Amino acid sequence: MMDIVIAGGGVIGLATAWRAQQRGLSVTVIDPAPASKASHVSAGMLPPGNEQLYDQPELLALYLASRDLYPSFAAELEEFAPSGYRRDGVLDAAFDDDALHTLDHQHAFQKSLGIAVERVSAEECARLQPAFAPALGGLLSPDDGAIDPRVMTAALQTALKKLGGTVVHERVIRVDGHTVLLGDGGVVPFDRLVLAAGCWTHRIEGLPKGAIPEIRPVKGQILRLHSDPPLLNLTARALSGGSSLYLVPRLDGELVVGATYEERGYDETVTAAGTNELLTRAAAVLPGAGDLRFAEISASLRPGSPDDLPVIGPTAVPDVYLASGHFRMGVQLSPVTAEAMAAHLTGTAVPDPAVPFSPLRFGG
Amino acid sequence: MMDIVIAGGGVIGLATAWRAQQRGLSVTVIDPAPASKASHVSAGMLPPGNEQLYDQPELLALYLASRDLYPSFAAELEEFAPSGYRRDGVLDAAFDDDALHTLDHQHAFQKSLGIAVERVSAEECARLQPAFAPALGGLLSPDDGAIDPRVMTAALQTALKKLGGTVVHERVIRVDGHTVLLGDGGVVPFDRLVLAAGCWTHRIEGLPKGAIPEIRPVKGQILRLHSDPPLLNLTARALSGGSSLYLVPRLDGELVVGATYEERGYDETVTAAGTNELLTRAAAVLPGAGDLRFAEISASLRPGSPDDLPVIGPTAVPDVYLASGHFRMGVQLSPVTAEAMAAHLTGTAVPDPAVPFSPLRFGG
Repeated sequence: MMDIVIAGGGVIGLATAWRAQQRGLSVTVIDPAPASKASHVSAGMLPPGNEQLYDQPELLALYLASRDLYPSFAAELEEFAPSGYRRDGVLDAAFDDDALHTLDHQHAFQKSLGIAVERVSAEECARLQPAFAPALGGLLSPDDGAIDPRVMTAALQTALKKLGGTVVHERVIRVDGHTVLLGDGGVVPFDRLVLAAGCWTHRIEGLPKGAIPEIRPVKGQILRLHSDPPLLNLTARALSGGSSLYLVPRLDGELVVGATYEERGYDETVTAAGTNELLTRAAAVLPGAGDLRFAEISASLRPGSPDDLPVIGPTAVPDVYLASGHFRMGVQLSPVTAEAMAAHLTGTAVPDPAVPFSPLRFGG
Repeated sequence: MMDIVIAGGGVIGLATAWRAQQRGLSVTVIDPAPASKASHVSAGMLPPGNEQLYDQPELLALYLASRDLYPSFAAELEEFAPSGYRRDGVLDAAFDDDALHTLDHQHAFQKSLGIAVERVSAEECARLQPAFAPALGGLLSPDDGAIDPRVMTAALQTALKKLGGTVVHERVIRVDGHTVLLGDGGVVPFDRLVLAAGCWTHRIEGLPKGAIPEIRPVKGQILRLHSDPPLLNLTARALSGGSSLYLVPRLDGELVVGATYEERGYDETVTAAGTNELLTRAAAVLPGAGDLRFAEISASLRPGSPDDLPVIGPTAVPDVYLASGHFRMGVQLSPVTAEAMAAHLTGTAVPDPAVPFSPLRFGG
């Protein structure tokens, strides 16, 4: 049986591991603290799309492929443990005229893609989310939703172990031929190696210069509030002042509010300013948010490739593969990335939408 | 040797315990989690005074007596463990005209009391605290400072144990004759009992109705930021918009920012609104605060007596004493309260300033 080592136990590495196991591969995931970085902090919103997709047809196709896979991905995962998936709709609400225009554009675009989406009135917004400040109107996407990445990554680890996989709590320091060297001095052999260590991926030593594109860190701070019962009924985005705030409620009363985007290198500090920004923006659209319990402020580093697009597939180094650079879409793109990686690792047909994201586009 | 039981291991109970031990009494402190409530959350600022003292001569006298005791109290405590005391000055800074008038009044009042205080210019404020936004002027009180209540209460527990005292991690449920009944069913006999359980004091059962005044909870939320090196050089209060924000730096880089005052019953929830208020107020006077690490938001319940004044001394119930109701001044009033309680318990002369605070004023 072919031995696969995956360096990085975030949502991408774990989903890839699971899908690879289902194809009969033997998998070891190596991570000092699996699912503790960007995957742990992420809100896990699964909207029908994002503005940044509209003028990027290849990314859009990848995104929609992953969206199509999510229901079955989550259902299969539920055979091992709760997945944290909910598909009870996403409401985008506009709080100023510009935002309303944005939603009109989004509405037309999504309809052209065949996505179920409904333009809803101000009154309908108030009915759907009574906790909202008065909105001017909204879009309801009934087939979309969210997943709780903390629940999802726990389920992926459960599945991995039940299927005979191994999780090693160490850091991969270096690649040496067909082995990786760990932080504790250990050596693990592999037939094929997947690098899925987010913004730490290119820092793994021992590979030819340029073989791995630089995956830069893009810091995000995310707030978690809590109330019982939940303040919001539906996953939502609040659009105002030219930006979008996402509000992801969990059934247990947690409300995830995000996020900041900061280019500050490898800085994972939660700051006064980041916290203040999210609290202030949440208060502006949710008049009752002030009474919610302040549960958590956290920060993580999104992995940004040189062109800000995912990097999925074999590198120029034989038997070394890459799955990283998912930027702000790691959770959303996990199902399709895992499918594509499993196909690459087994030499079977790679889903078409994943083909353009080859690491070789950077000339490595 | 006389056996003293103290119900409540906050700063008042622990300081009383230590001073009582020094007078030869055998002391047991009973608290499910000593120093975990208001004492743990408190900033521990030790300013030369507060506005609420100006028209309350008895409280002022008590406050000044405690202020006089602090240096020796801290020095003696240092024989056991670090006390967390610093006496390197307090800067009050005015950020609007009304605040400047307030400081002028405070200046005159403190000088009339013989307190060392200096009116400083806007330039001097900027020199003393370069991290401040431009202030209009300030007051420097060189003989005042702060204490870290977390360090102080740890030292008091160390002292208590070194002197042969006992800490029982349980709750006092009921007084029955000369015993207390604990949450775990245990029974502890006493010769004299001190009730020092903050806003939970009057909830202890078994005493005649009215013997213990109701000590209501007044919620306070406090923010802790962090930077290395510390952002502020000196303990400070920032006055603007008719209110005062206190800013207590620790040598390790912690910056305590407080506080809210909320009458919400026994609610210790940290809220989005409380956090937002403190972050926004801090940012207004400290332009660099945004970059500080968000370290902690915490809430506690200050103990407020029916007249908002401390309650110190014997109750109408033989051998049952009270030390509570210190509201927002528990840390500041610990030395004098502990002295007074030790005197009450040993039948020696009670310091004059503590005499007016008898529990019997409520007619119990």
